[in-house]
Amino acid sequence: MINITIWNESGHKGRAYPEGMNAALASIFQDKARFNVDCALLGDEAQGFPGERLEHTDVLFWWGHSKHEKVSDELSERICARVREGMGAVFLHSAHFSKPFRSLMGTTCSLSWREAPGECERIWITNPYHPVARGITNGFRLDREEMYGEYFDIPKPDDVVFTGWFTGGEVFRSGCAFERGKGRIFYFQPGHESFPIYRDENIRSIILNAALWAARADEGLVDFVPDGSCPHVRVSPEPIRAWSLRRIRLKK
Amino acid sequence: MINITIWNESGHKGRAYPEGMNAALASIFQDKARFNVDCALLGDEAQGFPGERLEHTDVLFWWGHSKHEKVSDELSERICARVREGMGAVFLHSAHFSKPFRSLMGTTCSLSWREAPGECERIWITNPYHPVARGITNGFRLDREEMYGEYFDIPKPDDVVFTGWFTGGEVFRSGCAFERGKGRIFYFQPGHESFPIYRDENIRSIILNAALWAARADEGLVDFVPDGSCPHVRVSPEPIRAWSLRRIRLKK
Amino acid sequence: MINITIWNESGHKGRAYPEGMNAALASIFQDKARFNVDCALLGDEAQGFPGERLEHTDVLFWWGHSKHEKVSDELSERICARVREGMGAVFLHSAHFSKPFRSLMGTTCSLSWREAPGECERIWITNPYHPVARGITNGFRLDREEMYGEYFDIPKPDDVVFTGWFTGGEVFRSGCAFERGKGRIFYFQPGHESFPIYRDENIRSIILNAALWAARADEGLVDFVPDGSCPHVRVSPEPIRAWSLRRIRLKK
Amino acid sequence: MINITIWNESGHKGRAYPEGMNAALASIFQDKARFNVDCALLGDEAQGFPGERLEHTDVLFWWGHSKHEKVSDELSERICARVREGMGAVFLHSAHFSKPFRSLMGTTCSLSWREAPGECERIWITNPYHPVARGITNGFRLDREEMYGEYFDIPKPDDVVFTGWFTGGEVFRSGCAFERGKGRIFYFQPGHESFPIYRDENIRSIILNAALWAARADEGLVDFVPDGSCPHVRVSPEPIRAWSLRRIRLKK
Repeated sequence: MINITIWNESGHKGRAYPEGMNAALASIFQDKARFNVDCALLGDEAQGFPGERLEHTDVLFWWGHSKHEKVSDELSERICARVREGMGAVFLHSAHFSKPFRSLMGTTCSLSWREAPGECERIWITNPYHPVARGITNGFRLDREEMYGEYFDIPKPDDVVFTGWFTGGEVFRSGCAFERGKGRIFYFQPGHESFPIYRDENIRSIILNAALWAARADEGLVDFVPDGSCPHVRVSPEPIRAWSLRRIRLKK
Repeated sequence: MINITIWNESGHKGRAYPEGMNAALASIFQDKARFNVDCALLGDEAQGFPGERLEHTDVLFWWGHSKHEKVSDELSERICARVREGMGAVFLHSAHFSKPFRSLMGTTCSLSWREAPGECERIWITNPYHPVARGITNGFRLDREEMYGEYFDIPKPDDVVFTGWFTGGEVFRSGCAFERGKGRIFYFQPGHESFPIYRDENIRSIILNAALWAARADEGLVDFVPDGSCPHVRVSPEPIRAWSLRRIRLKK
Repeated sequence: MINITIWNESGHKGRAYPEGMNAALASIFQDKARFNVDCALLGDEAQGFPGERLEHTDVLFWWGHSKHEKVSDELSERICARVREGMGAVFLHSAHFSKPFRSLMGTTCSLSWREAPGECERIWITNPYHPVARGITNGFRLDREEMYGEYFDIPKPDDVVFTGWFTGGEVFRSGCAFERGKGRIFYFQPGHESFPIYRDENIRSIILNAALWAARADEGLVDFVPDGSCPHVRVSPEPIRAWSLRRIRLKK
Repeated sequence: MINITIWNESGHKGRAYPEGMNAALASIFQDKARFNVDCALLGDEAQGFPGERLEHTDVLFWWGHSKHEKVSDELSERICARVREGMGAVFLHSAHFSKPFRSLMGTTCSLSWREAPGECERIWITNPYHPVARGITNGFRLDREEMYGEYFDIPKPDDVVFTGWFTGGEVFRSGCAFERGKGRIFYFQPGHESFPIYRDENIRSIILNAALWAARADEGLVDFVPDGSCPHVRVSPEPIRAWSLRRIRLKK
């Protein structure tokens, strides 16, 4: 039985998640034989961690956006200590700037960003042998997502499992694995609150895989096998359109 | 004085390089006080390495495409041995499938690919503290390039210095650093023979940096400093156009 | 069910292993519900891999010593290809110089060595979060072992799980984990044929853990938790004796 | 010109360093054409960093022992921020438990220890291609040193340049390199205040190399070349004596 705690700085119910983002994430862990899920909010008692909730958490999911500074230093330190003792932690999207993530990393964790209509993301697998990549479609598309761009100021990850492509030209190390002490940490970039990202099937599978890996319950199984051939991908996933050709001719 | 040997399987003089690709690459190392450049071809005596040329080479540049199997096993083994002794090696573009690179890696080195009209590449820096990234413009554009896509079956690099973005939707770990024994190895993805890639200023700087790093003559200097801010990139480098918006509306 | 193949260049039955080393190693995998064990010798048909044995092997154990060159290049290449497809491989002791290990590494894999009466080894855990370290006593002693010393010319391992201490003054990276393609590789230094190393309880546990990890069946479970204290180890594991004190006084 | 600041929590002048440890370390950087050295103490104004000293420091050496908690959180944070901006930092011996080192690492940094008469240390090079290892004698001996033992609870270093051997049976990752943001960090274990460690020639060379590497002024030059042979080290560096043999016979 894996105890999951899903924390969010806000219980906002918007168009993307009428039920609230916490509930949307919690619905990934419906298998009551395997998972026990708690949802917590910054506005709750003890900022979401009353009693021994933190001590009993096996994997913590953290989503924060504009209220990072409101999290007490003391709570952040308790979370980091729990990670070192073995609690898994999955930091989602704007949580790159959260206190616990920055403390565990030791770097600024800054990046560039943009929210543009019509911008999509494609997620590519850059380590298919990592358990978090299991069963994921290489290059799957998110029709709308906020762009996060490099340079993402983190220490070199142990693994860059996913790399993202954005319509507007940027790339990003979208899925990064780290270890601090006994704890396994996964940073996963998708998850802008305006889009129902956490309903996407591949995204939901990645979240599930990440929980199992962070809880050290994943068995390391993967399905990808390299066959040594170099497939010719004749049709591009994204359109390469006439306007591009016009732009090239102009530049000559 | 750094002795550079630039090897190509062919001396073909085409539209992109009327002088031949070897000469185009050699022109990057014009500083005669620092560099001594030899050009070699598969069709030359001893497949390009007569006498003691290989023993005197400090950094070897290798470009091959369709004649990997014509390189003798013996020459490939001599090259790998020289790398282990300390010779630097920079493998360009389709050299991912060359005998020496595959021997040094121990993996298949396969990838996916496409050559499509109108497809461009943008090169992003995913390790700005690496000497090969020094002085390079983050996200610089190559108006035309052949797509290489993941999963690129190499061992985990020591550093992924550059990550590429392709118009058609793919990403690629375009600049990867490895060490084998005393030798430093850099794989650099751009360089399709139909486009004058090696005339691009950023590309030429990367090639120069790579030679200095592989020769252990780079001093480790870098210019990037993280300032902890998250810049909002309002205007996307690549256009996000009406057809994208149309596509999204259709999917709903 | 995990299919294990244990290969040895010799079926010699000596004082350390009257039953032969293969049988001693095979006895670690007695759980017939989990493991299916085949033993193979260099002198067997097809050098130990007739029919589809290699294709059905999930984890290959390899011990070789003086007959590395007798293994055919073709068999070595087949083994490397199987590793890239996902077969786990555990290379024991003098197998550091075997053809398949050297091909997968791409380096010379050389080291220094000595066989001296009275020399023991202590094995310390330098990554207690690695599944291969699970349940192992930190600093356990092997009363007799052949010294292997640094510099061990391998690429930087993904993990150095164990580091060895030898009475005569040397250290060695005794347990190293690598990945090539889908395959997991573990190099484990103990195993000189003159001493019954593979009867030691900690060694047997490591071998079992390594098989599970290489077969991707380990679940990533570990038991070590760092508690942040710095224990004062008053009594040294190995004696620090009067002759040492005498030696120091002389040097002044 | 490299600006070095050497910080110590105490200006104590003892038997090992009658001039004080700071002065002993400063004497390594006597080349006034290359280095500008400042010494600082916890007891000085602003805990050693008045005015713009910290902003002008290129490499900070830090030795602390029992007064880690007296260093203000604010100073520790300024130091970490400077490291991320590019200041090099070398943490010596008991500084493993200093506030800045622990913040940059994100782990407890705990270890085991012992101070025993007659215990010596030997330092082995486990990455001879690292600039900090340049010109160092492999396996050099420190006649007296305090034992530090594994498990040293740090994140996986980018490089473990040195591994130590202690008479009493332990090993330790004695020279570890990390990067945080633009800053290079080196942890170096030797340096117990009771022994004149910093007068040892190899130690002084390592300190000098570490300063150049951390300041990104090292050029990456190394001198070790692997030749692929496995030298037989007949005479052990440390004695293997009769009492060992007696102990083995008893155990049978």
